[in-house]
Amino acid sequence: MSSITEFRAVAEQVRNWGRWGDDDEVGTLNLITPEKVRASAGLVRKGSVFPLGVEFGAKGPQGDYLFRPNPIHLMTVDGGDADHFVEHSRGWSANPVAEQIGQYFADNPFRFNDDMIIMPLQAATQWDALSHTYYDGLLYNGFPASAVTSQGATRCGIDKVIDKGITTRGVLLDVVAHRGDDVHLDPDRPVTPDELDEVADRQGVAVEQGDVVIVRTGWWDNFRRTGDRSAFTSGLSWRCAEWLHARRAAAVASDNVTVEVPMPEFDGVFLPFHLLCERDMGMMLGEYWDVTALAADCAGDGVYEFQLIAPPLAVVGAVGSPVNPIAIK
Amino acid sequence: MSSITEFRAVAEQVRNWGRWGDDDEVGTLNLITPEKVRASAGLVRKGSVFPLGVEFGAKGPQGDYLFRPNPIHLMTVDGGDADHFVEHSRGWSANPVAEQIGQYFADNPFRFNDDMIIMPLQAATQWDALSHTYYDGLLYNGFPASAVTSQGATRCGIDKVIDKGITTRGVLLDVVAHRGDDVHLDPDRPVTPDELDEVADRQGVAVEQGDVVIVRTGWWDNFRRTGDRSAFTSGLSWRCAEWLHARRAAAVASDNVTVEVPMPEFDGVFLPFHLLCERDMGMMLGEYWDVTALAADCAGDGVYEFQLIAPPLAVVGAVGSPVNPIAIK
Amino acid sequence: MSSITEFRAVAEQVRNWGRWGDDDEVGTLNLITPEKVRASAGLVRKGSVFPLGVEFGAKGPQGDYLFRPNPIHLMTVDGGDADHFVEHSRGWSANPVAEQIGQYFADNPFRFNDDMIIMPLQAATQWDALSHTYYDGLLYNGFPASAVTSQGATRCGIDKVIDKGITTRGVLLDVVAHRGDDVHLDPDRPVTPDELDEVADRQGVAVEQGDVVIVRTGWWDNFRRTGDRSAFTSGLSWRCAEWLHARRAAAVASDNVTVEVPMPEFDGVFLPFHLLCERDMGMMLGEYWDVTALAADCAGDGVYEFQLIAPPLAVVGAVGSPVNPIAIK
Amino acid sequence: MSSITEFRAVAEQVRNWGRWGDDDEVGTLNLITPEKVRASAGLVRKGSVFPLGVEFGAKGPQGDYLFRPNPIHLMTVDGGDADHFVEHSRGWSANPVAEQIGQYFADNPFRFNDDMIIMPLQAATQWDALSHTYYDGLLYNGFPASAVTSQGATRCGIDKVIDKGITTRGVLLDVVAHRGDDVHLDPDRPVTPDELDEVADRQGVAVEQGDVVIVRTGWWDNFRRTGDRSAFTSGLSWRCAEWLHARRAAAVASDNVTVEVPMPEFDGVFLPFHLLCERDMGMMLGEYWDVTALAADCAGDGVYEFQLIAPPLAVVGAVGSPVNPIAIK
Repeated sequence: MSSITEFRAVAEQVRNWGRWGDDDEVGTLNLITPEKVRASAGLVRKGSVFPLGVEFGAKGPQGDYLFRPNPIHLMTVDGGDADHFVEHSRGWSANPVAEQIGQYFADNPFRFNDDMIIMPLQAATQWDALSHTYYDGLLYNGFPASAVTSQGATRCGIDKVIDKGITTRGVLLDVVAHRGDDVHLDPDRPVTPDELDEVADRQGVAVEQGDVVIVRTGWWDNFRRTGDRSAFTSGLSWRCAEWLHARRAAAVASDNVTVEVPMPEFDGVFLPFHLLCERDMGMMLGEYWDVTALAADCAGDGVYEFQLIAPPLAVVGAVGSPVNPIAIK
Repeated sequence: MSSITEFRAVAEQVRNWGRWGDDDEVGTLNLITPEKVRASAGLVRKGSVFPLGVEFGAKGPQGDYLFRPNPIHLMTVDGGDADHFVEHSRGWSANPVAEQIGQYFADNPFRFNDDMIIMPLQAATQWDALSHTYYDGLLYNGFPASAVTSQGATRCGIDKVIDKGITTRGVLLDVVAHRGDDVHLDPDRPVTPDELDEVADRQGVAVEQGDVVIVRTGWWDNFRRTGDRSAFTSGLSWRCAEWLHARRAAAVASDNVTVEVPMPEFDGVFLPFHLLCERDMGMMLGEYWDVTALAADCAGDGVYEFQLIAPPLAVVGAVGSPVNPIAIK
Repeated sequence: MSSITEFRAVAEQVRNWGRWGDDDEVGTLNLITPEKVRASAGLVRKGSVFPLGVEFGAKGPQGDYLFRPNPIHLMTVDGGDADHFVEHSRGWSANPVAEQIGQYFADNPFRFNDDMIIMPLQAATQWDALSHTYYDGLLYNGFPASAVTSQGATRCGIDKVIDKGITTRGVLLDVVAHRGDDVHLDPDRPVTPDELDEVADRQGVAVEQGDVVIVRTGWWDNFRRTGDRSAFTSGLSWRCAEWLHARRAAAVASDNVTVEVPMPEFDGVFLPFHLLCERDMGMMLGEYWDVTALAADCAGDGVYEFQLIAPPLAVVGAVGSPVNPIAIK
Repeated sequence: MSSITEFRAVAEQVRNWGRWGDDDEVGTLNLITPEKVRASAGLVRKGSVFPLGVEFGAKGPQGDYLFRPNPIHLMTVDGGDADHFVEHSRGWSANPVAEQIGQYFADNPFRFNDDMIIMPLQAATQWDALSHTYYDGLLYNGFPASAVTSQGATRCGIDKVIDKGITTRGVLLDVVAHRGDDVHLDPDRPVTPDELDEVADRQGVAVEQGDVVIVRTGWWDNFRRTGDRSAFTSGLSWRCAEWLHARRAAAVASDNVTVEVPMPEFDGVFLPFHLLCERDMGMMLGEYWDVTALAADCAGDGVYEFQLIAPPLAVVGAVGSPVNPIAIK
């Protein structure tokens, strides 16, 4: 049985603070070299494109984390009423927005639709920024937690990693195919480092420096099928942090809510894998990545590596970003 | 001098309705084949990554279009006050969000930051969906404008193009380098089809089927330098729609606000290039793409083609999407 | 058994179109005269104040109407991190909001908290504007439904009634006390005009011209106790519209979701009472008014009339408004 | 010349901490007694109603405080496209909101409009909660500033004052009429305690315990006329805090941005009047109250006292609230 003492020991071992300089806010993405980028493009052999981003909308997986509602999408002008602006918005001086839209449409066939969104930055398929989780008052690389103000992260915001693309080699580890069952249903059976090795061996693929490792648990398949956002999920054991550290992975992602198993593996620390990856190692986590179609293709041709391009939006000071990761084989 | 009559004649000539079936909502992205995807990956030679997405934040270019404010980024929990939740949010039954956050932090070193965004979907670097602009009550492929309701686009939403990636060959046409001046300053001098040919010739590059054509006007450079969001801009002449149509381009983008020149080239139709591309041809427009660093690199090595990956978010029913397009050379 | 034919007959009978001029957007609020306002102030005898507004927050009653989430309340600067702005936001040029806040706090003891809200205008205690519901393409007084554009109601918006205060005599009709049970539990037993008369008789109060009639069903008491936002509710029968019309009431409100009983009393028209009141009579509806404390006081002193002040916010073009109605006895 | 030392001395003198108990979060509103409420109703003689709330919309006064945009008002369903839902939203399973709206409209004449708002809680006519401003890490009554978390004010939120109504006697002090010019134009000429006495004398009115004092500077008149949100404004000198304290006023409001003069009267403390009132005295400030029509009426009949009802919304944990204050004469 693990403990918080063991957690702190592992944390010290995997901690990358200072490894890429005292000002570094990019973490393990530093492990992606131009040569790696070049090589990953060489993995494109069929021209098959797999978008891993799920839909952002009212049917999304949010609701249990009360601070994260599903996206709210609203129109500022739409097709049903554009023509009416011409008639009704002229002279409506109390509403200059309506007046402006009316002016565009007057004496003119031009019409447009426009829209807004209100959403948590981690509403659906996402990257956690390195400033997302922490402990002991310090973020990755020792920056103080107070550097994340009410106006956003002055340190380790998602905007700091933009230059990395993020593009590199992606490797899918399909635990569902390995276990032969709905792995997501059993939160008491975390995916261990040994099991990751077994999956990799079975697939004939090796994780290398700079890779983004994507683990399939089957949670998203289940959510799409059932709509049950509260369904149990398995996920990585917290000890997988060391495994990723040893392999010099650049990032890790999954098709579930938290990458790691959300049920505590030991007392005293909530989401220890998050803390080790983001705060100690400087490794970003990707969540709600839909790998269903990709996994089917990999099972078909036996190729579990691909070019991955997963560019976050440069939201200033954000601690996460929506993303539509693209895998190309 | 052009006229609305000429506009309608050109519209008929370039109209792609039915070309890919009556139910098609993807338009010219159909011109991107798996072979094209494969070939575009082959353009990666140096492993150099150029993110073309600008920052999403309070300093963005919005303000003149009253229906599009700059993004508002707010924290649901931040580093300065996470510890205070433990003390203050317990028993605050009127606010279950605060209670829940407090529970995560109780008796536990785990802390997290989380955030929300409120923004127009076209606040900064973006893709227009095919449902963005139209005339005569019809969208691309003849779908009725009324299919875009207050709850979003049931037809030609940005979510309909997700399967395309979007990834293909990108070609930069650097009009600034060609003209040798700040092209963005002169809205009365639109970029003509002939000038596009001259730029391509000068650069030694040809636009081919399935390409995304990216035109540099220098507007974004100027905005970054001056912060003047209302600065004049040049852009494509409306007749460039035919040029793109003839070359079977998949999409077109620019570093300015509207791709095309916003000052009317003739009376009676506002933004005619938008209408021809989006509504008649089914061609998406990308706006506010920052090509400064990319252009410098292209000028340096003389290579103006690259692998482009520009994945929109699958916002259900959205008429546009923020995007961080990645060019890889 | 009623029918849509009967509905249309009643509608014609109670319709007030043109009664206060063709441009009127105020409806039955016209029935509140200065003399009425003066007299209602005379009802204040004890100096007891009863705010009828419920809390606006994450624990509110929303969730079943998918287009109406509960309010989202977010801080732009809060007490936990104000001091950190001084240290962290200087020179953060990418975020001028943070810079500005930091400037206020530099070399200065002054600190402030500030906040934003995202909410449906009918999230909790509310007034429906006359533009909220309609049929046959026409709003109250014959204005076209198209006058409510994507940018708000150019006709019959809540901003049009602001001059009325809204202040007048309020009368509580406590159906719960009358029935002696949880009236809210039985949607199949609507409150009929006859029952309204019985309640008024029992209470020794008469509804007069210009009154706001407030009906207690017990729904809100139940919601507060159980948190069950989906609990059944009783409410007014659609025929009560005639009753209110005959008594020349100015408005009607209730402690439940829809004032009227939501279960259809006859086939073919959803929420017929809404349509008759708002669209035909020009009578505003108030919903989610918490009359628990007021009802207890009225039961205690036998006085069911009071001064009522229920001022909507002048939200330009809104079809409803949050309100905190004040009853003073 | 004043100084921060003098500020601290005044602060100690006017500080009301503990005066109404250690748990008090209501402050000087405690000075409003039932007798005061009763008496204030007796001031209604003509039945004239003056709503003091300005419009909430895109034309509001916000823009200079970057953390406070003007309200954004968006429709979830509007009159132009309601009918189209019947046709287009059925079977749009990706958008359950649209599906639900479509169901309401199917086989049924019932139609509705609905809307949302995104706004700072102090976007226009407002009450500051006692938790709005502070110094030295302590709020009113000694509560720690950290009690205002990212999820709102657990202490001294606006929801804590709801029981007070807020209703009492209001007194208008028309400094514009007194000075005979546009007082708002001269920020270097703050309104002193002596001038308040002169105005009251001139008007023949005396401020008494429990009153809400409303000061007219003319700023809002100017804003309405010119649209210049950045226009200079005069306002109360910081020493007026003592004047209000001595007269046992319940609250203070004005037609300008900050009640007090925003230009520093001495070095070292920004908005000292705010700090003395809200943090030390426990007195709420009302801002952007439009008293133009009220002032004209008072000038006409010579009566500067009235019943005032200014009910904030019970937004859980909010540090301010929009309000539409009603003055009745």
